[in-house]
Amino acid sequence: MSRFAYVGGRYLRHRAATVSIDDRGFQFGDGAYEVMAVHRGFPVDQVLHLQRLYRSLAELQIAEPVDRRALPVILDRVLSLNRVCEGLLYLQVTRGAARRDHVFPKAATPMLLVTARRVPPVPPVVIRDGVAVISIPDQRWARCDIKSLNLLPNVLGKQQARAAGAFEAWQVDTEGMVTEGASTNAWIVTEDGALMTRPADHAILNGVTRQVILRQATEFGLRLVERPFSLGQAKSATEAFLTSTTSLVLPVTRIDEVPIGDGRPGPVAQGLRARLLLLLNEEIGRQSP
Amino acid sequence: MSRFAYVGGRYLRHRAATVSIDDRGFQFGDGAYEVMAVHRGFPVDQVLHLQRLYRSLAELQIAEPVDRRALPVILDRVLSLNRVCEGLLYLQVTRGAARRDHVFPKAATPMLLVTARRVPPVPPVVIRDGVAVISIPDQRWARCDIKSLNLLPNVLGKQQARAAGAFEAWQVDTEGMVTEGASTNAWIVTEDGALMTRPADHAILNGVTRQVILRQATEFGLRLVERPFSLGQAKSATEAFLTSTTSLVLPVTRIDEVPIGDGRPGPVAQGLRARLLLLLNEEIGRQSP
Repeated sequence: MSRFAYVGGRYLRHRAATVSIDDRGFQFGDGAYEVMAVHRGFPVDQVLHLQRLYRSLAELQIAEPVDRRALPVILDRVLSLNRVCEGLLYLQVTRGAARRDHVFPKAATPMLLVTARRVPPVPPVVIRDGVAVISIPDQRWARCDIKSLNLLPNVLGKQQARAAGAFEAWQVDTEGMVTEGASTNAWIVTEDGALMTRPADHAILNGVTRQVILRQATEFGLRLVERPFSLGQAKSATEAFLTSTTSLVLPVTRIDEVPIGDGRPGPVAQGLRARLLLLLNEEIGRQSP
Repeated sequence: MSRFAYVGGRYLRHRAATVSIDDRGFQFGDGAYEVMAVHRGFPVDQVLHLQRLYRSLAELQIAEPVDRRALPVILDRVLSLNRVCEGLLYLQVTRGAARRDHVFPKAATPMLLVTARRVPPVPPVVIRDGVAVISIPDQRWARCDIKSLNLLPNVLGKQQARAAGAFEAWQVDTEGMVTEGASTNAWIVTEDGALMTRPADHAILNGVTRQVILRQATEFGLRLVERPFSLGQAKSATEAFLTSTTSLVLPVTRIDEVPIGDGRPGPVAQGLRARLLLLLNEEIGRQSP
């Protein structure tokens, strides 16, 4: 089946879809993006994702590329053109094409790209066994709260993890505290039963799944502590897990080859994963006709 | 006159030249680049620029896109197609197009882009009066020695400078030391007559003009000190200046509205600029038939 992409106002065959060599996304990484999960044909947590996109654009002083009411219509159209029921929706906005110069161009039209694709579900073995994580120094810039296209350190971190046979790389700041994974947020459950994650400062992206869990955790009877934790704390935690739009909740059972807890996925990660799947179905259920 | 670009193996009209929406340069900033000055139709310091490009690619584990002997031929062809005598040559290499995933793709072909354009000479008034600089916190990642496409903090810094009526933003690290400008290296002449610039650690790009000056300075009778200097030292310096491929040497006469020295371009900056222009003509003279 052909895939289709929305590129700056037009729906094009994905394989033939291109952008100008002068697009500032291509030459400077001058733009922001979002990835949404698609479940039963609907984008999950669309409101939260679009809120964050608009925040990223405001921080970068990039104008919104289309009317706010038009954007969901475009997303829907890309989903249906690609017949995606379970998968991903990818949105990218750049400052547009202009003669190369660091300074913002006087007249450039922001460029919106939307693509979609099917994604198979996370294999059951991953949920059953959990994933391994390595630690690496956090080498990123000071504004990781902006979901920008400057993703080279994330690419290098993820590649390093994969080369080490791990799923993710947890980045550690100069104070020895874990910031987040290369594309996921990091969580631990401490010995005294607190659920701990770094506050959403400028050093991490405030993940949408992270935000949903923060709201759910107290209802779930968990004591929530938004505070940075060290790599040492993570390794001696009762449980560790990671969250993201595409992974939802994944138990972390090894960090730098050190088993976490008894080395098996723990009840908090498993419970939160189940809870989120339930919420997801409820949310989509409300949207379905 | 139409401009032409070399894009992944083909010479295309610049205006119509495009790249895949799946190019990793566009989605991750996953690539490196170089900008060379063109003088009398020849790329200046081509050997040094290509050396640095190959180093950036090696650091990012991106394969070289074309044979090393072929690259100068492509550069020459782009210059002649565009009839550029005085101007710029721009080279960009990305990891290529692949389905979006942070991890390096198994089979992607690195993409080479080459463009060229004419640039008018620096206006004499800029040389006569010098330029103003503002200081900003250095928010960039930990590997600024790689000339990568992750340029968002540089873009934001340059824009902030322009909005403040300045030419450049000097970035200051958490220890209060100047790293470099958003697209230029930073230099001062201290009260006791030393020429000071930051050593080429991971916090700065080792500029080609910087390298040429380091070799020239001693011959020029200057005492060279490669050591980080603070913003305070810069403001109380006898002279300050910046260097880059496109600016060569520009006197800095104000930092955050504080006049440097007597507020006029000093003899070291002016002397080095003259010296570099001489060298440039000698170098090109040797290449001309």
